[in-house]
Amino acid sequence: MSEHGYFGKALEFLRQNKIKVGDIIRVRTDSDYSGTVMPRYEHTDDEHIVLKLKNGYNVGLEINKISKVEYLLTTQGSQGEHIQPKFDSALLKVLLLSTGGTIASRIDYRTGSVTPALSAQDLNASVPELSEIANIDAEVLFSEYSENLTPEHWVKIAQKLDSLAKSDYKGIIVAHGTDTMQYTASFLSFSLAGYPKPVVLVGSQRSSDRPSSDAALNLISAVRFIVKCDANGIFVAMHNTESDDEVACHLGTRVRKNHTSKRNAFETVGGKPAFIVSQDELVRNLEGSYFKQKEYTPSIKVSTRVALVKYHPGYDPKIIEDMINHGYMAIIFEGTGLGHVGKTMYEAIKKAKQKQIFLGMTSQCIDGRVNMAVYESGRDLLHLGVVPLSDMIPETALVKAMWVCANNDKNIENIMRTNIASEFTE
Amino acid sequence: MSEHGYFGKALEFLRQNKIKVGDIIRVRTDSDYSGTVMPRYEHTDDEHIVLKLKNGYNVGLEINKISKVEYLLTTQGSQGEHIQPKFDSALLKVLLLSTGGTIASRIDYRTGSVTPALSAQDLNASVPELSEIANIDAEVLFSEYSENLTPEHWVKIAQKLDSLAKSDYKGIIVAHGTDTMQYTASFLSFSLAGYPKPVVLVGSQRSSDRPSSDAALNLISAVRFIVKCDANGIFVAMHNTESDDEVACHLGTRVRKNHTSKRNAFETVGGKPAFIVSQDELVRNLEGSYFKQKEYTPSIKVSTRVALVKYHPGYDPKIIEDMINHGYMAIIFEGTGLGHVGKTMYEAIKKAKQKQIFLGMTSQCIDGRVNMAVYESGRDLLHLGVVPLSDMIPETALVKAMWVCANNDKNIENIMRTNIASEFTE
Repeated sequence: MSEHGYFGKALEFLRQNKIKVGDIIRVRTDSDYSGTVMPRYEHTDDEHIVLKLKNGYNVGLEINKISKVEYLLTTQGSQGEHIQPKFDSALLKVLLLSTGGTIASRIDYRTGSVTPALSAQDLNASVPELSEIANIDAEVLFSEYSENLTPEHWVKIAQKLDSLAKSDYKGIIVAHGTDTMQYTASFLSFSLAGYPKPVVLVGSQRSSDRPSSDAALNLISAVRFIVKCDANGIFVAMHNTESDDEVACHLGTRVRKNHTSKRNAFETVGGKPAFIVSQDELVRNLEGSYFKQKEYTPSIKVSTRVALVKYHPGYDPKIIEDMINHGYMAIIFEGTGLGHVGKTMYEAIKKAKQKQIFLGMTSQCIDGRVNMAVYESGRDLLHLGVVPLSDMIPETALVKAMWVCANNDKNIENIMRTNIASEFTE
Repeated sequence: MSEHGYFGKALEFLRQNKIKVGDIIRVRTDSDYSGTVMPRYEHTDDEHIVLKLKNGYNVGLEINKISKVEYLLTTQGSQGEHIQPKFDSALLKVLLLSTGGTIASRIDYRTGSVTPALSAQDLNASVPELSEIANIDAEVLFSEYSENLTPEHWVKIAQKLDSLAKSDYKGIIVAHGTDTMQYTASFLSFSLAGYPKPVVLVGSQRSSDRPSSDAALNLISAVRFIVKCDANGIFVAMHNTESDDEVACHLGTRVRKNHTSKRNAFETVGGKPAFIVSQDELVRNLEGSYFKQKEYTPSIKVSTRVALVKYHPGYDPKIIEDMINHGYMAIIFEGTGLGHVGKTMYEAIKKAKQKQIFLGMTSQCIDGRVNMAVYESGRDLLHLGVVPLSDMIPETALVKAMWVCANNDKNIENIMRTNIASEFTE
């Protein structure tokens, strides 16, 4: 039998010493090592236990050589030496709001291990550098895989942030799974237009039980960014390169997860990341303000009567008719090239238009700008009432439409065309 | 009034000299210029006419300075000096099959100007370098915007190529609009698995009435590639950089149009282009063969009872139920991250599975590999019968499913998982 990947001699060692995966311990072998006991999904021998050290690296320790074990913090609460978050009155306050995802767990809760929700104490224990940059408060909003987040979760996050608009936090970090991070970032950008603080969504691509985890650096950099920056907006902070050196803060409405597994999977579409955070400096590429109007005007409703339709040869127009029958309010097309769909779609588009459904055009090319004036197909679609959405990325256009339809359904086209939160590049 | 953008003095000049847009003329000003008279959509003065020279560049000629006009070829047929395609018995034969698109016109037919279909004569007149590389035959299959191509058009192209499998052409170029080029390339790859010649789809991103047109270089490079290469397969040849120097030959199943307007919009996902063609050399990055089985086994049917579902938070599972009711045979998901959809989709997925609908998973990240064993969500979906499709790109997976469902509907999962035409990287 195996527990968190431990079996045989290693499992026996853990049991004898009453050590659980997730405990923070100090052990002596050739030298002293302090860190979190990690699960061992990727290893097969029973000779070692694995600790994640505070520098983020994992070390395998041969159990035969361990001469001493001390408990620093257990998953059941404090024992022995207890690490308390420091409060330093010279530092700014930052709130870490957790919604789930790898980053939000001291150890990856998705693999079945401990501590799905993180407390301030856990956080300081796992990333002690944070307390040297800011006074961190941490709060668990919910704990969900981001692929299971729904628009209702978006609303909860937005309402929580709205309640913090006048707080004394310099900024707020939202720990979030990476799968749908860009969708949440877009919703916050529109629903909290003009929000008076920086909000930074942070995730990690590699669970913290792997030596290559990006969790600690992303978190440290997000705090560093909030403390140093003079910009408001909704940002996504993730590794900028494959190395563990730089973190990019992307515009929440222009970011996309472009790789399933790389640490630098997130990219700003059609431009540089708004900020680059490294150990020593904060580089600003963002020109002007994230929010295009200064006043804070929260409007936190959402509609799901909106579809994203990725066009392809052979796309069945019956699907559009089903959407009409279901009472959809808006359809965002991911057209081909400069913003086209085939003539086979025209009849369904006419019917949708007759029902006053908003029809917006983006491109499945992802990068570049829709231009429907160039070719006859584009001009046909303009004539049918399809609205070109310039270089707004398709997922952002979808979320914006979900937001507009719920908050201002009398003025959809005008608001869809208005730059609210840097969703269009100028 | 204006004709092809000409008005005032310039239009008067054309009329007096009986010159039509599309005519090939030689004029004398400060020196002699020979080329095709181009439309002037992007200019506004009436002082110049524009010629496309044989080097591909456009030149504006001040009409006041023109001292002599000679006709080389008119849009109405030959007059004066007639340029005949040369036949050189030392050169290989290449067929250029035209389906439409900017590349297939001597002048962009999309803007309403002349010559939508190209003949061998037109071709040699507009890109005379071709006849120095190969003996080119040209044939018009149809002339459609590629956004208007349907699976029926794919079948026509495949049937035509099938009829040429034993011909004496070294290879075949398919001139094609860029909007849906990758879908056609995928269909040809599966339906003509093992095809014994290189087939190269060629398009252009900038219409030939613009000085920055990429049409000539893409075409020249495709011919050069066919003549020099020892590889069979379905390739897409487009600019490799923003400059006019290199052309990339991408694997037809791994290529994506990733920008709406750049000349190097096409990219191989997750790897280098299979070949790079420059003036002097052909660099091969492709390891092994494009087709994974040597035997040529055409199977040219297609089904449109297949959907591509891009998942997002708030996706309405009713749409899946509609697809079930319409008798769909397969649904390809573009899931999030490593291949996930939210729990809200599980019931609809179960219903689809009960109806024996094939359910395949790709990622909307586009790059990287689906891995559904890592997280609970992925394992749930595997348990529900969703089939992970590794790093097959979503559009290719859609087309493959459209092909499998029509040609071998008893063995869908097995064939979807089998590498036929480099759709999976090893």
